[in-house]
Amino acid sequence: MTSVDLNSDMGEGFGPWKMGDDEAMLSIVSSANIACGWHAGDPIIMHRTAEIAKAKGVAIGAHPGFGDLWGFGRRTIRGDSMADLEKQMAYQIGAMQACAALAGHKVTHVKAHGALGNMINDDEDMAMAIGRAIKGVDASLVYVVMPTLPSERAAAKLGLPMAREVFADRTYDDSGNLTSRKTEGAIIHDAVHAAERVLRMVQDQEVTTVTGKRLKVAIDTICVHGDNPAAIAMARTVRETLEAAGVAIRPFRTA
Amino acid sequence: MTSVDLNSDMGEGFGPWKMGDDEAMLSIVSSANIACGWHAGDPIIMHRTAEIAKAKGVAIGAHPGFGDLWGFGRRTIRGDSMADLEKQMAYQIGAMQACAALAGHKVTHVKAHGALGNMINDDEDMAMAIGRAIKGVDASLVYVVMPTLPSERAAAKLGLPMAREVFADRTYDDSGNLTSRKTEGAIIHDAVHAAERVLRMVQDQEVTTVTGKRLKVAIDTICVHGDNPAAIAMARTVRETLEAAGVAIRPFRTA
Amino acid sequence: MTSVDLNSDMGEGFGPWKMGDDEAMLSIVSSANIACGWHAGDPIIMHRTAEIAKAKGVAIGAHPGFGDLWGFGRRTIRGDSMADLEKQMAYQIGAMQACAALAGHKVTHVKAHGALGNMINDDEDMAMAIGRAIKGVDASLVYVVMPTLPSERAAAKLGLPMAREVFADRTYDDSGNLTSRKTEGAIIHDAVHAAERVLRMVQDQEVTTVTGKRLKVAIDTICVHGDNPAAIAMARTVRETLEAAGVAIRPFRTA
Amino acid sequence: MTSVDLNSDMGEGFGPWKMGDDEAMLSIVSSANIACGWHAGDPIIMHRTAEIAKAKGVAIGAHPGFGDLWGFGRRTIRGDSMADLEKQMAYQIGAMQACAALAGHKVTHVKAHGALGNMINDDEDMAMAIGRAIKGVDASLVYVVMPTLPSERAAAKLGLPMAREVFADRTYDDSGNLTSRKTEGAIIHDAVHAAERVLRMVQDQEVTTVTGKRLKVAIDTICVHGDNPAAIAMARTVRETLEAAGVAIRPFRTA
Repeated sequence: MTSVDLNSDMGEGFGPWKMGDDEAMLSIVSSANIACGWHAGDPIIMHRTAEIAKAKGVAIGAHPGFGDLWGFGRRTIRGDSMADLEKQMAYQIGAMQACAALAGHKVTHVKAHGALGNMINDDEDMAMAIGRAIKGVDASLVYVVMPTLPSERAAAKLGLPMAREVFADRTYDDSGNLTSRKTEGAIIHDAVHAAERVLRMVQDQEVTTVTGKRLKVAIDTICVHGDNPAAIAMARTVRETLEAAGVAIRPFRTA
Repeated sequence: MTSVDLNSDMGEGFGPWKMGDDEAMLSIVSSANIACGWHAGDPIIMHRTAEIAKAKGVAIGAHPGFGDLWGFGRRTIRGDSMADLEKQMAYQIGAMQACAALAGHKVTHVKAHGALGNMINDDEDMAMAIGRAIKGVDASLVYVVMPTLPSERAAAKLGLPMAREVFADRTYDDSGNLTSRKTEGAIIHDAVHAAERVLRMVQDQEVTTVTGKRLKVAIDTICVHGDNPAAIAMARTVRETLEAAGVAIRPFRTA
Repeated sequence: MTSVDLNSDMGEGFGPWKMGDDEAMLSIVSSANIACGWHAGDPIIMHRTAEIAKAKGVAIGAHPGFGDLWGFGRRTIRGDSMADLEKQMAYQIGAMQACAALAGHKVTHVKAHGALGNMINDDEDMAMAIGRAIKGVDASLVYVVMPTLPSERAAAKLGLPMAREVFADRTYDDSGNLTSRKTEGAIIHDAVHAAERVLRMVQDQEVTTVTGKRLKVAIDTICVHGDNPAAIAMARTVRETLEAAGVAIRPFRTA
Repeated sequence: MTSVDLNSDMGEGFGPWKMGDDEAMLSIVSSANIACGWHAGDPIIMHRTAEIAKAKGVAIGAHPGFGDLWGFGRRTIRGDSMADLEKQMAYQIGAMQACAALAGHKVTHVKAHGALGNMINDDEDMAMAIGRAIKGVDASLVYVVMPTLPSERAAAKLGLPMAREVFADRTYDDSGNLTSRKTEGAIIHDAVHAAERVLRMVQDQEVTTVTGKRLKVAIDTICVHGDNPAAIAMARTVRETLEAAGVAIRPFRTA
């Protein structure tokens, strides 16, 4: 492997409120997942983030979530039919596409946010609903999935282009899913440790779980965060470590 | 003139709440303006309305409004820059396009709703902002405007395809704008009277104002309403009267 | 028992949208549970409902729900701490109290809505959180609970006045909880059957479950619905049947 | 005059988003105006702010605004009747009262936010509507007004207790209203200059306008800001300057 994508969630302010340092992150990552106004983000922020991403050569994706601004899309909401969920996703993807168009950029991928992102890796019906929304809106959009989990299977079944993602700062259980944030050690705080782990994952195309099991996975993109200065520093270290090892940072798909 | 378009606002429910009888109206009109979730409407309703419109051969448009669900987009909101307004419009248009795509239909026009619709006929800066949003998202979309007013001038300046609209149930002042709803007689309640007036406008391509002045205008589409049984009956009478006089009812643009 | 309360959910419109026939129901019931703007309702509707209730001698309660207007408070939302839930309830109760005050009326009870109402009968922690909110705002407010279930236990533990509620149109399982709406026969559609069942429950102070088991319960109030003409007719039949048998319809608490 | 109140807007975050440094400001001011969830704020933040205010001996007020979270209550919204505005205010005041009660504190005043705050000093009908809401909810609540302007007249007409407010960092026109933010010099940035100006206003009980005119006014409270470090520094300087001159900082009303 000579290249991989680095992605981060962005555009997570709303109206008068800001979150994270998107400018800094847009100089580190190759793909930006932009909130679509339902759990965060608004048209001004979506447009502005797309505009800066365009200027910096960063690919952009729609980052749809539950309609839960107050809960930031992190609360689990149950009760929507799969058909209804599909339309909620289409709405957000389309809104992002139009804001991107206005900024002269183009959406190339879709990644589910927060609770929704967790649910599609537990529940294949939900993963299929998100996939059908993507396909119905634009079948050339890349579905960001977690390898070995329901989201990857859904993308495969639907014949959608996919980007398999691993997380720089999280540990994995034997099913290939993230360990719960509540578990001791679930989150990796040391930047150098995270960067070396990422490099190994990318070079070996495998994930080592908390029990030591090694899962063969294809890795297209690595998720990093920009919520706070430490996260940004870790993202930078991950990038530098990969580049130092000869791995180029490049979007998995260009517009 | 052998044909004209009939348009109506639709999809104005929200979540558990309904408004109007869209099914009935979709059998009368040739174009549906679908609310985009900001003043009314939601992804499920947007998709469903597009789906029925498709089945009935009715063209669809995005019907963006102020982000004011509670006020139904009828309250005047001031304080956004024109640049910010532009992005709010793009967002709604894109959301509608994606819901339409999922339903196998295609958005062909954009019409501003409520207070926003009124403001673009008073304020050319605002009319230009809405026009730039349309153009930035998809320059082939038809901008629904009022003849002789700022919205028509904005569409012309931007080189956007436009559909000039008159209202079946409203009277006009000498500037070509609607008389205030608060004026005695501003709203026409008699269906036959409205229908005959519409026929005359279409045949003569002119609007007679409340002072008797005759304004030469090009007319592409006629706005009718479906909020209540009387409105639906009027819409039906308008259609029948036009057809009886040999004027076909046809979308101004097919998908 | 010579009297019992009849309660119904009301004020469930929002902005331009209406739901149910509150005027009709306010002539049938003795207590109104008024939506507080989070799943339905708004200040205008809350005030107006309180005003009519006052005029008709109907007691009023706050009917708080999840902040989910689109889902009408019927979707299950998980992720809030109990402490956070408590404040969400307080907010809604206070808003209702103030709208009632402006209308010259006074809130006397609190009943949880929709998914939240279901959850407090499964989860005592949640029932306690709602109870603590009530107590913290005004310890004289009556907590509407389901007999034998977590909500009743929570009210008892907190020393709150409570009103034990049964439903006119629902069947019960052996735990004293409602059978799932998805179960065949879970909802009673025949007005006369419902009314006779209610009369028997009130006279015997017991609930007969779907297995034939008889649960001794204290019954203070009976829930009826006003969503549609059939529901209103059933509510009327329930009232008439009770009154014909000498049971007066009276609020469980007067303002 | 031996004492005056210092007030500041607070609790202006929402869900995951923060704004300002409330902890710092609660050590400087004697009154906190807490956003009520319509333009900013939420039940958790409202409760928490009340709790800290209580601990620090700071009086609290409801700070209602337009229902415009995205616009932060700064956009002018027209179209509500005065009667409808009244209920919107009551709702917010009541919500704040309940969150305060849960925190063991008590609301003693009401101050309108943003665009609404500006409008009540231009339009006495609106000032009366806000006043009627306050009176209808609790006639002992203090209405924060601007001396010589419609809000002061409304409070007087309604017989409401009032607190007359001047701003530490703004200049005044001859009508006693603030000069437009767009005017050169409308906002005072120098902390020492602002503090000396405030001291003079308090000692003389008069406001000097931009034309040099001196308006006799009664001053009960001084508005300072906490949005950024410079604002907080100015607030501290205002307090220290007043105290050094023997003016005690004290709430205009204790709970």
